[in-house]
Amino acid sequence: MPVSDNHARMANAIRFLSADAVEKANSGHPGLPMRAADIATVLYTRFLKHDPHHPHWPDRDRFVLSAGHGSMLLYALLYLTGYEDITIGEIEKFRQLGSKTAGHPEYGHAAGIETTTGPLGQGLANAVGMAMAERIMNARFGDDLVGHYTYVLAGDGCLMEGISQEAIALAGHLKLSRLIVLFDDNGISIDGPISLSDSTDQCARFEASGWHVQRCDGHDADAIARAIEAAQASDKPSMIACKTTIGFGAPTRAGSSKAHGSPLGAEEIAGARKALGWDAKPFVVPSDILDLWRLAGLRSAKERKEWEARLAAASGEIRTEFERRMRGELPGGFESAIADYKKKLAAEKPKLATRKSSENALEVINAAIPETIGGSADLTGSNNTKTSQTTPFSADDYAGRYVYYGIREHGMAAAMNGMALHGGIIPYGGTFLVFTDYCRPSIRLSALMGLRVIYVMTHDSIGLGEDGPTHQPVEHMAALRTIPNLRVYRPADAVETAECWQLALEDTTGPSVLALTRQNLPAVRTEHVEENLCGFGAYELETASDDAVVTIFATGSEIEIALAARKKLEANGHPTRVVSVPSMERFAMQTRQYRTAMIGNAPIRVAIEAGIRQPWDALIGPDGIFVGMSGFGASGKYEELYAHFGITADAVLKAVEERLHEAA
Amino acid sequence: MPVSDNHARMANAIRFLSADAVEKANSGHPGLPMRAADIATVLYTRFLKHDPHHPHWPDRDRFVLSAGHGSMLLYALLYLTGYEDITIGEIEKFRQLGSKTAGHPEYGHAAGIETTTGPLGQGLANAVGMAMAERIMNARFGDDLVGHYTYVLAGDGCLMEGISQEAIALAGHLKLSRLIVLFDDNGISIDGPISLSDSTDQCARFEASGWHVQRCDGHDADAIARAIEAAQASDKPSMIACKTTIGFGAPTRAGSSKAHGSPLGAEEIAGARKALGWDAKPFVVPSDILDLWRLAGLRSAKERKEWEARLAAASGEIRTEFERRMRGELPGGFESAIADYKKKLAAEKPKLATRKSSENALEVINAAIPETIGGSADLTGSNNTKTSQTTPFSADDYAGRYVYYGIREHGMAAAMNGMALHGGIIPYGGTFLVFTDYCRPSIRLSALMGLRVIYVMTHDSIGLGEDGPTHQPVEHMAALRTIPNLRVYRPADAVETAECWQLALEDTTGPSVLALTRQNLPAVRTEHVEENLCGFGAYELETASDDAVVTIFATGSEIEIALAARKKLEANGHPTRVVSVPSMERFAMQTRQYRTAMIGNAPIRVAIEAGIRQPWDALIGPDGIFVGMSGFGASGKYEELYAHFGITADAVLKAVEERLHEAA
Repeated sequence: MPVSDNHARMANAIRFLSADAVEKANSGHPGLPMRAADIATVLYTRFLKHDPHHPHWPDRDRFVLSAGHGSMLLYALLYLTGYEDITIGEIEKFRQLGSKTAGHPEYGHAAGIETTTGPLGQGLANAVGMAMAERIMNARFGDDLVGHYTYVLAGDGCLMEGISQEAIALAGHLKLSRLIVLFDDNGISIDGPISLSDSTDQCARFEASGWHVQRCDGHDADAIARAIEAAQASDKPSMIACKTTIGFGAPTRAGSSKAHGSPLGAEEIAGARKALGWDAKPFVVPSDILDLWRLAGLRSAKERKEWEARLAAASGEIRTEFERRMRGELPGGFESAIADYKKKLAAEKPKLATRKSSENALEVINAAIPETIGGSADLTGSNNTKTSQTTPFSADDYAGRYVYYGIREHGMAAAMNGMALHGGIIPYGGTFLVFTDYCRPSIRLSALMGLRVIYVMTHDSIGLGEDGPTHQPVEHMAALRTIPNLRVYRPADAVETAECWQLALEDTTGPSVLALTRQNLPAVRTEHVEENLCGFGAYELETASDDAVVTIFATGSEIEIALAARKKLEANGHPTRVVSVPSMERFAMQTRQYRTAMIGNAPIRVAIEAGIRQPWDALIGPDGIFVGMSGFGASGKYEELYAHFGITADAVLKAVEERLHEAA
Repeated sequence: MPVSDNHARMANAIRFLSADAVEKANSGHPGLPMRAADIATVLYTRFLKHDPHHPHWPDRDRFVLSAGHGSMLLYALLYLTGYEDITIGEIEKFRQLGSKTAGHPEYGHAAGIETTTGPLGQGLANAVGMAMAERIMNARFGDDLVGHYTYVLAGDGCLMEGISQEAIALAGHLKLSRLIVLFDDNGISIDGPISLSDSTDQCARFEASGWHVQRCDGHDADAIARAIEAAQASDKPSMIACKTTIGFGAPTRAGSSKAHGSPLGAEEIAGARKALGWDAKPFVVPSDILDLWRLAGLRSAKERKEWEARLAAASGEIRTEFERRMRGELPGGFESAIADYKKKLAAEKPKLATRKSSENALEVINAAIPETIGGSADLTGSNNTKTSQTTPFSADDYAGRYVYYGIREHGMAAAMNGMALHGGIIPYGGTFLVFTDYCRPSIRLSALMGLRVIYVMTHDSIGLGEDGPTHQPVEHMAALRTIPNLRVYRPADAVETAECWQLALEDTTGPSVLALTRQNLPAVRTEHVEENLCGFGAYELETASDDAVVTIFATGSEIEIALAARKKLEANGHPTRVVSVPSMERFAMQTRQYRTAMIGNAPIRVAIEAGIRQPWDALIGPDGIFVGMSGFGASGKYEELYAHFGITADAVLKAVEERLHEAA
């Protein structure tokens, strides 16, 4: 019996696993799995190229449940098709502490969860990055090794979020024809009918950005299948608006927002069982249906084996390189290239903006690491993110290594997450530090998922000058340091910039932000050391001439001020040491012994950073002296701004001597 | 001679004031003013209803320069039409510290600057809020007092940002026919031609969201005028795509991204002078041209006088109410309504989630204050933002007081900024606290502009339970506290919630965030006090039985834990006081004496908050005990999560006793 004849029963298996799991958890969203079960069944039984027994097969199709609140749909699919991580026991533990079946799909909890979703629109934008990565890897490794689709199931919520526009426009522009979005067009959101808040013709909107668009009945399996076939044949990214009924099958709640975000209740579920002819008990899938599902799970096994044979048959160079990149290991020559470069910098002592030092470091990095893919949200010349190796990535040339993301910080960050998730690529992208606010939800997800994504954030303080307070980050260093598992770096010169880049690249457990200056800075690391001192997070840059009375902590552009202040303090007889703090997160990872030694026991502690105080109390204490910002910046020449806001060596001297005077 | 005959010379006055100011500052963006001068000249000489000598006339048309980097365009217009704040001296001081002519238009620096722009897309989204406010005020006060247009000049950057989609979709849905967007369609961004990064048909995109769309030659004054007339006549919001040439007039840089963001240089400006026939020296506008501009500035003076006559003739009740609302003063009965409500709560001692307490407070507030306009980004039932008074605001009923913003946190926040800027309205809107990330750029602008916008942010910790780490704020309290001039409140019970609402409403100098729980909390303020204790930011909720050995600071849902910990500590013989800290910002505003007293001198300081430690070091010092989160949350029942992450009274007891043991 062909699978399609059993379509309805197979889809019902998803529906009741989902409704019963939500019911048992007494928490969750039954609406999406109930209505999207038909779409998902068609996709997983007829199209999706994957192998549940080899879930990490690099050339599998990616499926992204952008509407992450419908997580049970994904868990049901993974269980039914035979992914071993998701057992029926896990489904019974839906939304319980310690289970793999969290409230929203969490990347890393189980194979088959391709990305963490829940914050709306992110999955769709991740998928754009995955589809970009597929083309990038295809351009490098050819059709034999790379050629897959990226499918997305997105809801109204995803499409109403602004990030969706950035993602849609980028995908349309790049003609990502292997990206197929299934729009669960159910006409309902939490507050009620979509007509309460939206009148957008989504199909017309996608068409305006160069997409191939179709509409179909989301409960007609063959219609869905025909639409996916047409989407695959198109030379544009595709959107299929699948008209669905929320809470499909639920006798009284179907078509109402009441079927969205809370359990249906025993009576409603019983009614749905009757209406849909489903006799099985909760968490039981009749064996004939489960067999059909498991058989469907084996659909691509042959294809996977053929792919493995092709990989085995590829040239050693290609195979080794492909496998290295997919493992996320850096190439052999990288470490020595950076070491040589650092040696050169210590000798040359360049006076450069750290954004320029970053570009120079990237010249070395991009030559040594072919998998870096750079870009900027329309600030290429300001972020200094493009190097000689990175020709544009475009619909005409997927071999390019530089993405002109347009003025789309959020879409850029989410696409970088998608590229990192896909594997084989190390994405980095730039904007102004102040605009980390525009992509903060995606930065948070980089951190939550532990992805190696590198944010190149220039113009990192009032030092950018005339653009004024809207463009001057003041609270951003502090605010970024609050995000768990994010490494924030603010290097002080060319050597520190190179070291921070190295740390970011070698760190496979989370994202990094590099905060870089617009203005020139002197070289402060003028003697070569092999060790990556920035790796300690904080280290002594200048010792005191005697037992230190003052310790000055500073970062980035304020190291210059710290060194000048030290000179004045020493001249006035106050032995002073200077500690550079390129990364508070790295510092927090050091031993207690190291940290205690580095904080030292000078009676006066000072911190200088052209941002707010909040993160510095941990180092200097509430009684420490902070020289920095306490409010928004202003428009003017940067030297005048530093003087205006009192971030100067003289201000440090004065504050310290006042304190000494008080103590005396 | 009719003004239009002089159109070209009047437009050139804008062009050369702008190019020369950028040149003198050696910083800034000449491109936009050069190319958009024709559009701006048509708007300001033929359409804009304003009176430079009465710049705060409530019924003036609003003009928003969403492409804020083109600030010189606005400054030139304000100078030319006769706004006294912007003198030629100010224009000569363009981008200098202390001038009114900052790098980007800064609200409050000079009359005629309707909003702060620069972060792209924000101005467009503010304008949607202004246009909503206009309709809301019109529904209340009638055509005699309220009836104006909101004009926006937006560039490619604004339209590529995701926030623009949220704004466009909202405006289209609400049929804001008095909103007219002039799209400066110049085909160039910083990185080069738009074709590098975008292929979107912007006209089709706006049409998909229900807009009236036209195209015109952005250098043909009459064509622009005809398009604006047609836009005014439309019953939808209008977008006019004005085809322009970047750096119009600049002989070699026209049409290139080189004309965007840096001074043209003396030679290029000389060439432009020649090409456009402009003989005047820098910062000199020929007197006949200046006269024409000043005359144009008087165009609406008669209309303003007539409006004033109508206001004077209106009934006393209407006039008084209109003037009160435009002054931003709360109505007389509010204070006593809140006082009565607090008294009732102290007696009833309700055990409620603070989101529910917020709803109850809003019932009182919305009854007493007719100018509140509520809403939610599709989480009405979760944020508890709708009360009995607030019927839906829709295209069919602009008298409604509740906005279904859809899943558009960013668009909501920016629209609220626009409403607050317009005047006559106090906007509040809700989403989950974690999604402050989605609207953070607009929250920052609320703070930078000092606007009374109230963010109702529920589900404020792991206490939300099963939705898991994507929905659980961990770093958000800390991250919001980093934003200058933003007041962050986390009330502990119904009384504190009412007090925080009162503070937010009475605060005309900046925005407030209310962080509210999903889970129920006991009443902790069980005795009525007239004074608003939350106004102190921190206050002693429970005294110690003797000289305090321990002080516990806590907020919101963790007050319950603090009180339970105090009991255990007291039982074990450790006198313990509990300080509630509903607002760190308010606390920082108190006298040093108050702050010192409140921090106290107990040898052990503890802070409890289900978020990260960063902001707490200021109160407890690096040696203080912090009981809270150090990483992301998890999906599970909230009681289990609190136990799992060790945020319990027992954990506090244990940590304190270990410390006492160490010290002994």
